[in-house]
Amino acid sequence: PAAIEWDIDAAEKGGYEFFMLKEMYEQPQAVGDTLNPRIKDGNVVIEELGMSDDEIRSIRKIYMIACGSAYHTCVSAKYVFEGLARIPVEVDLASEFRYRHPIYEPDTLAIIVSQSGETADSLAALREAKEHGIKVLGIVNVVGSSIAREADNVMYTWAGPEIAVATTKAYSTQLIAHYLLALKFAKARGEIDDTQMAEMVEDLKKLPGQIEMLLENKKRIQKFANRYLATEHVFFIGRGLDYAISLEGSLKLKEISYIHSEAYAAGELKHGTISLIEEDTLVTAVATQEELYKKTLSNIQEVKTRGAFVLAVTNEGNTEIEKTADYVIYLPKTNKYFTNSLAVVPLQLFAYYVSLGKGLDVDKPRNLAKSVTVE
Amino acid sequence: PAAIEWDIDAAEKGGYEFFMLKEMYEQPQAVGDTLNPRIKDGNVVIEELGMSDDEIRSIRKIYMIACGSAYHTCVSAKYVFEGLARIPVEVDLASEFRYRHPIYEPDTLAIIVSQSGETADSLAALREAKEHGIKVLGIVNVVGSSIAREADNVMYTWAGPEIAVATTKAYSTQLIAHYLLALKFAKARGEIDDTQMAEMVEDLKKLPGQIEMLLENKKRIQKFANRYLATEHVFFIGRGLDYAISLEGSLKLKEISYIHSEAYAAGELKHGTISLIEEDTLVTAVATQEELYKKTLSNIQEVKTRGAFVLAVTNEGNTEIEKTADYVIYLPKTNKYFTNSLAVVPLQLFAYYVSLGKGLDVDKPRNLAKSVTVE
Repeated sequence: PAAIEWDIDAAEKGGYEFFMLKEMYEQPQAVGDTLNPRIKDGNVVIEELGMSDDEIRSIRKIYMIACGSAYHTCVSAKYVFEGLARIPVEVDLASEFRYRHPIYEPDTLAIIVSQSGETADSLAALREAKEHGIKVLGIVNVVGSSIAREADNVMYTWAGPEIAVATTKAYSTQLIAHYLLALKFAKARGEIDDTQMAEMVEDLKKLPGQIEMLLENKKRIQKFANRYLATEHVFFIGRGLDYAISLEGSLKLKEISYIHSEAYAAGELKHGTISLIEEDTLVTAVATQEELYKKTLSNIQEVKTRGAFVLAVTNEGNTEIEKTADYVIYLPKTNKYFTNSLAVVPLQLFAYYVSLGKGLDVDKPRNLAKSVTVE
Repeated sequence: PAAIEWDIDAAEKGGYEFFMLKEMYEQPQAVGDTLNPRIKDGNVVIEELGMSDDEIRSIRKIYMIACGSAYHTCVSAKYVFEGLARIPVEVDLASEFRYRHPIYEPDTLAIIVSQSGETADSLAALREAKEHGIKVLGIVNVVGSSIAREADNVMYTWAGPEIAVATTKAYSTQLIAHYLLALKFAKARGEIDDTQMAEMVEDLKKLPGQIEMLLENKKRIQKFANRYLATEHVFFIGRGLDYAISLEGSLKLKEISYIHSEAYAAGELKHGTISLIEEDTLVTAVATQEELYKKTLSNIQEVKTRGAFVLAVTNEGNTEIEKTADYVIYLPKTNKYFTNSLAVVPLQLFAYYVSLGKGLDVDKPRNLAKSVTVE
């Protein structure tokens, strides 16, 4: 009998070349797992939250604190919480928050986000907040981790184990946790009614299927990515929530492809950074926010005038963008507050295929650790 | 008789090769002009402020809104206002603020900073804030400009006309305006006493002379800059106020040298961007905040381990940094809240000499306008 070679690593990857691709494909499942148990009769129910509606109504400010991609979900969440629940949110990098002696005001809630629940700076920020009498809610993926244990309450993301250093499914489930909290807070505070809640819950339930559909686009993105293997500079631009997702798209590309990419609020580009745009510089423009669409379009025009090649990510139907952008990826319709969950998929795929095309170790980029448990 | 060629442009530059260098050299004078008329008997007096001490005590939140380098002065000012006056500050890019439907709370003050007073996004943000009943204070250089006229009150920076696109002296005077306001607010709110006020005023009065001394260092920085004319990527890192000045140092380099530079909160680097550090990547590390010094030192060590070449900017006396950093610039002692005014000088000189060495038009970088009066 012939010896059968059994590659445990490959088996764990379930046929995928890298964990990152496998984990991107697990996003519909992970998003559904994080979402579905918290939807009951068209309403958001977060059993483990441990906060009464009265308590939710008394909140006057939220600190959101995290590192890396988890920090980017907080940048997104500021728009969602302020827009839906009308609670002022201040977003902080954990490494900055823990040393900057913030002003602690009464009725403040701190939300700390961490996949591993062991991120050293985030854990230190949690302790700093608690020492000052601030209630802490953790959004954590690893059950029983330090942040899960030390937070006053914890809301788990049900992403399952994530192996690739570059986060994909954990990031996507953190966004879902933020949406659910924002909806719950908005409802408790009377900022949205039953009809609005029901509509938004319907949009949330469509996300897993929409993410799956976007993942099927991978060949087209791979083809595009292969044209950019030698590029040294990429810029990501967007406004509002599209700026938040630009931060994540840029970091994803940067960490696994070693291309120097940078995200900019689209309106700020002309205050300096536009001097870096030359013939064929790749600019990825995200334009999912309809009320900002025309403004972003004019920023795209500005970089086109300087010779940029523009990859645009926008909503289905915005076809006139093709007159300006060179390459367009369309996203299915969802509520304006949830577009980051869709826009991230092509940006993840782009980063993945650039890294793959360059022959790099996608799952283990140089210099980086999966969870940063030292300062 | 021989015809004499008269170059008006050169005459206006007063013998300097570029306006930017001339304007850097005007900083001691401009800082003094902005500072001195507002110091009376060891106290800060801002006659045009138009706010009583009672009104200052009633402020519960400050929005600071600006674009480009003026925005960076607001990032700095958040630390100074929160640290000294203990008023929560939220900093916004004007192009984002004007569209993001912020939550307007009672007793909020908006501070809008603009050299020209005509920056389109900043002016629109001012109008948006006023429409919502928020009192607006302008920090403006050009007398009678739109922002100066439309703000409820205006505090002028006395920088004089600035010609170079890359701001230097206007930036430095904006920092001074912030310090003066923060001190006045801190005093009115009882957060500092007469002795502390007098000490800090003494430190402020020393800044012009200290800036002058740092400008004399130019040959050493020019020599260093000439080694980096061909570099394509630079990172600026720092924590707290040193992060704020890193943003400005990075933008200065980027806008006139076309080198892709990026600023990072030093503690955040290991969450992705450190994968870009390779042999000889230039990292500029600013470490003027004594309570964060050891933390930044350990971040310098991290990038050194990956092969970075480190230019450090730190306070006199921190000589043990030479064991880790490759090249060190020392700053004279000042109050911890004012170090940005000193740290910016070598960073400006570095950007200037890189641009000069590359043979670029220092004063008029491609794609950029001096004041951005369109959206």
